[in-house]
Amino acid sequence: MRYSEIFLPTVREVPSDAEIISHQLMIRAGMIRKLTSGIYSYLPLGYRVMQKLERIIREEMNRSGAQEVFMPMVQPRELWEESGRWSHYGKELLRFRDRNERECCLGPTHEEVITDLVRNEIKTYRHLPKNLYQIQTKFRDEIRPRFGVMRCREFSMKDAYSFDANEEGVDISYKKMFDAYCRIFERCGLKFRAVEADTGSIGGSFSHEFMVMADTGEDAICFCRNCEYAANLEKAEIAMPERRQISIEEFLPLELVHTPNMKSIDEISAFLHVAPKDVVKTMIYSADATPVAVLVRGDEVINEIKVRNYLGCDILEMAADNMIYDVTGAPRGFAGAVGIKARTIADYSLMNMINFIMGANKEDYHVKNVNIGRDVSVEAFADLRIVHDADLCPRCGRPLKFARGIEVGHVFKLGTKYSKAMNATFLDKNGREQYMMMGCYGIGIGRTVASAIEQNHDANGIIWPMPMAPYHVIITPVNVNDESIKRISEDLYKALLEKGIEVILDDRDERAGVKFKDADLIGIPLRITIGQKSLSNGKIEVKLRRSGEVKILAMDRVEYFVINYINEGM
Amino acid sequence: MRYSEIFLPTVREVPSDAEIISHQLMIRAGMIRKLTSGIYSYLPLGYRVMQKLERIIREEMNRSGAQEVFMPMVQPRELWEESGRWSHYGKELLRFRDRNERECCLGPTHEEVITDLVRNEIKTYRHLPKNLYQIQTKFRDEIRPRFGVMRCREFSMKDAYSFDANEEGVDISYKKMFDAYCRIFERCGLKFRAVEADTGSIGGSFSHEFMVMADTGEDAICFCRNCEYAANLEKAEIAMPERRQISIEEFLPLELVHTPNMKSIDEISAFLHVAPKDVVKTMIYSADATPVAVLVRGDEVINEIKVRNYLGCDILEMAADNMIYDVTGAPRGFAGAVGIKARTIADYSLMNMINFIMGANKEDYHVKNVNIGRDVSVEAFADLRIVHDADLCPRCGRPLKFARGIEVGHVFKLGTKYSKAMNATFLDKNGREQYMMMGCYGIGIGRTVASAIEQNHDANGIIWPMPMAPYHVIITPVNVNDESIKRISEDLYKALLEKGIEVILDDRDERAGVKFKDADLIGIPLRITIGQKSLSNGKIEVKLRRSGEVKILAMDRVEYFVINYINEGM
Repeated sequence: MRYSEIFLPTVREVPSDAEIISHQLMIRAGMIRKLTSGIYSYLPLGYRVMQKLERIIREEMNRSGAQEVFMPMVQPRELWEESGRWSHYGKELLRFRDRNERECCLGPTHEEVITDLVRNEIKTYRHLPKNLYQIQTKFRDEIRPRFGVMRCREFSMKDAYSFDANEEGVDISYKKMFDAYCRIFERCGLKFRAVEADTGSIGGSFSHEFMVMADTGEDAICFCRNCEYAANLEKAEIAMPERRQISIEEFLPLELVHTPNMKSIDEISAFLHVAPKDVVKTMIYSADATPVAVLVRGDEVINEIKVRNYLGCDILEMAADNMIYDVTGAPRGFAGAVGIKARTIADYSLMNMINFIMGANKEDYHVKNVNIGRDVSVEAFADLRIVHDADLCPRCGRPLKFARGIEVGHVFKLGTKYSKAMNATFLDKNGREQYMMMGCYGIGIGRTVASAIEQNHDANGIIWPMPMAPYHVIITPVNVNDESIKRISEDLYKALLEKGIEVILDDRDERAGVKFKDADLIGIPLRITIGQKSLSNGKIEVKLRRSGEVKILAMDRVEYFVINYINEGM
Repeated sequence: MRYSEIFLPTVREVPSDAEIISHQLMIRAGMIRKLTSGIYSYLPLGYRVMQKLERIIREEMNRSGAQEVFMPMVQPRELWEESGRWSHYGKELLRFRDRNERECCLGPTHEEVITDLVRNEIKTYRHLPKNLYQIQTKFRDEIRPRFGVMRCREFSMKDAYSFDANEEGVDISYKKMFDAYCRIFERCGLKFRAVEADTGSIGGSFSHEFMVMADTGEDAICFCRNCEYAANLEKAEIAMPERRQISIEEFLPLELVHTPNMKSIDEISAFLHVAPKDVVKTMIYSADATPVAVLVRGDEVINEIKVRNYLGCDILEMAADNMIYDVTGAPRGFAGAVGIKARTIADYSLMNMINFIMGANKEDYHVKNVNIGRDVSVEAFADLRIVHDADLCPRCGRPLKFARGIEVGHVFKLGTKYSKAMNATFLDKNGREQYMMMGCYGIGIGRTVASAIEQNHDANGIIWPMPMAPYHVIITPVNVNDESIKRISEDLYKALLEKGIEVILDDRDERAGVKFKDADLIGIPLRITIGQKSLSNGKIEVKLRRSGEVKILAMDRVEYFVINYINEGM
């Protein structure tokens, strides 16, 4: 492509509304433009990168045995009623009525549509397993779209759905997708980790997120350097501590203390001259409208995702003042477990605590020397708090490492969640009707492109990994009005095109400095500079975008070097 | 692909709700399934055909110099206000509000978005011309979706938009697209015609439709066998007839005749013992709310598209009773041009008529011996009627042919319609601000696939043109439980795969008859039958789907034959 012809509007200034580097660089490199809040157009350079990624995805999905389909974005309410998500999904599901007043939504994901399709067509185990995927536009009406295509409302996604006859089947399908995802991100040239993750609103029994590692990532993850364990921070498990032998003789007498207006752990511990770890926090939640008290050591933080999963409830929220008053008999800030009228669960951090301090269920009072068993009855000890850097690997007990990443892929074992709700059954070998076992698997296309930039850039712009680069080479004649420079540039351009190399010829009548800046900004891996100085020695300059290294090559060596360098990077 | 693994649910029965053959066959061949009214999912076989077409389109669009982008489906009201189409588009534009109560629509086309994108980025003639295209999902809320993907609500479209600095530029861009479209449909292996067409709601100065020829087509077209002329029937021109010398002596005296309750041309002509061609129809229209009388010979039919284009009005509709009464002084059914209080235009068919009959503008009366000039004043004679088979080619005067077709592509020269409305300007060579000259160019992806079927099928199913075939070859072992049949089938399958041939191995344990029926239904160009009978002679049977011809080939000749046959068909 000739630079003079390509629609590639680069921008020198950092756009004021772009907070993160990938958003800034995608605007500046002329890859995307905003149409309206959270909705972007992809320009030719941006779309080329998307297509590179899509091609890798298709090859690996097909290799895994998945088959490509294409499902609609506009979906009827009825299907979403069947799965129960019409009422559960929240406002990210954009609902509207068509001209005939039929209620529809814009698909944020396609479990309903694919389950409907498959239940209508597959009736016997002989037609299972199947794995169907598409690359298609989704819409999620984010309350606060931000970070460019990283958290936008309309976006392209590869979503796949597997259907199996039994548990072993879905485990194989899941593993195939897990492996395909590893190959996809590897082939993209990205540094990534697969981590255990929460299943969120999609539901299902377990899941992994694929994280592109980047310091600027929204997600925190932890992983073990010793074993394979890796998890999203919100999911990361904490092993049950060993239970210490506690003798009742150690228990001190319960004691009410006046703590006027002291509600926070910090206030209490300072006032009573103890450490936060000697105090217990009692949090009252409304779990599907039923009160539950959750206890955690004062220096730890409750992980609500773990609480929700433990309770198996749909909606978990902090209890309102009246619910707190109902179960504690006191206003907010003085809740404790002694005599509480609610189901009570305790984090593992309480398991070996004795003689601790907690709210007295009485305004302006706490109690000291509380002991589980004697004063407080706990339904169970469980893993209910957020992991931190003092924690150890739940698998092997070695120290955990923490890092940040960007979620670009997510694989879920759904089990029968949707097949039960939507009655997707088949006849097994014995002629018995069974629910299909499902998995679902997503990759955000635009997100992956943006994450590649978060991971691969410098002060001058993007540094594309070769497999995602929109073009491999940019030829920069330093002066297009010089006949010999022009001729050699054109000849090289044609020679590289003939070899199937994706190349831009920067034929613009601009200063060399402007051209260099644009080449760096758009991140083309190789820049070939054609100027009088090196030409006079029969040499050509090739600059490697990633290392900044400059090679001075004999003219007849350039083609060979370029082809080799590209192949090595693929 | 192994048939046992592919998701390819074929159906023997003709679906009751499918009226046209392509709809029936796309359902029966497992290509599509309906999600809801006018909205379809593409299954693997259907999506493969779409991808074949998309690839050809991309190659030819890129070859023409167009660049691929990807624009959003959800679009803000503001842009559509700028172009004036928010109020003009009608109910096919699906409008809704997002969670923040912002008004949006689902893009039925992208003139607004692309014009906005380009006006923000291109400021000088040096960055023109540009032609940007996408393959993307559109939504048009059809009042009566029907015929499967032929007239559906959600569909995939290739749409391109060109921007030029001047009239010559846009003509070149238009010609490039016209040529690219010819190459695309040629490469698809389709019989098609480019015909002159009306510009409809998109607007602009002229346009061509690309019609895939099929007897079942919705559109009627006419064309000249002698010259290049071809047009959509609604657009087809009628040449101005030669004007006959008319002498006032021929005029007979005007005569009022009582025609009780006779309103139609047939009633009048029968009652007065004349031919319909001796009577003149006077139709009163409301053109943007102004009354206009249109005169046409009694045996001809007014073409409202021509009337609207002649008048240059936005909305043309039959006048309401009160408007008719206002301009004629009589109720509907007796309108005539004598003394009418409205602008009056006449079709060419009136040009040489004398002493004709028309309504008297008086209930239950007509007038005889009306003559233009003496009794009636006509603003102009123009081409205002529908063409029919007695008409001659407007270019060369030879007889016209008529045929039916399906519109699969449409190219428009828009001129400055959108750039003016949306202020898309650039600075020309002289530093003067100018409006960009635009063109827009669409191809319906699903429609083209369906039209290919309308044009290529028989009683047994689809007959894919090679370039669109989802697979080129299907290998049919007549009995998968026979070891030698199985081995030879598998070997051939692998050999063809290695040559890059797209092949299905029908490894199902089904009767040969079932397999043959499916192979015919899904339309694979070559079926290789592996059975004991021919094998025992060292032969293999290859059946050509299109001609039905069966070749008995020596085993070692099959590969060569297959590769040759495919290459010839591409």
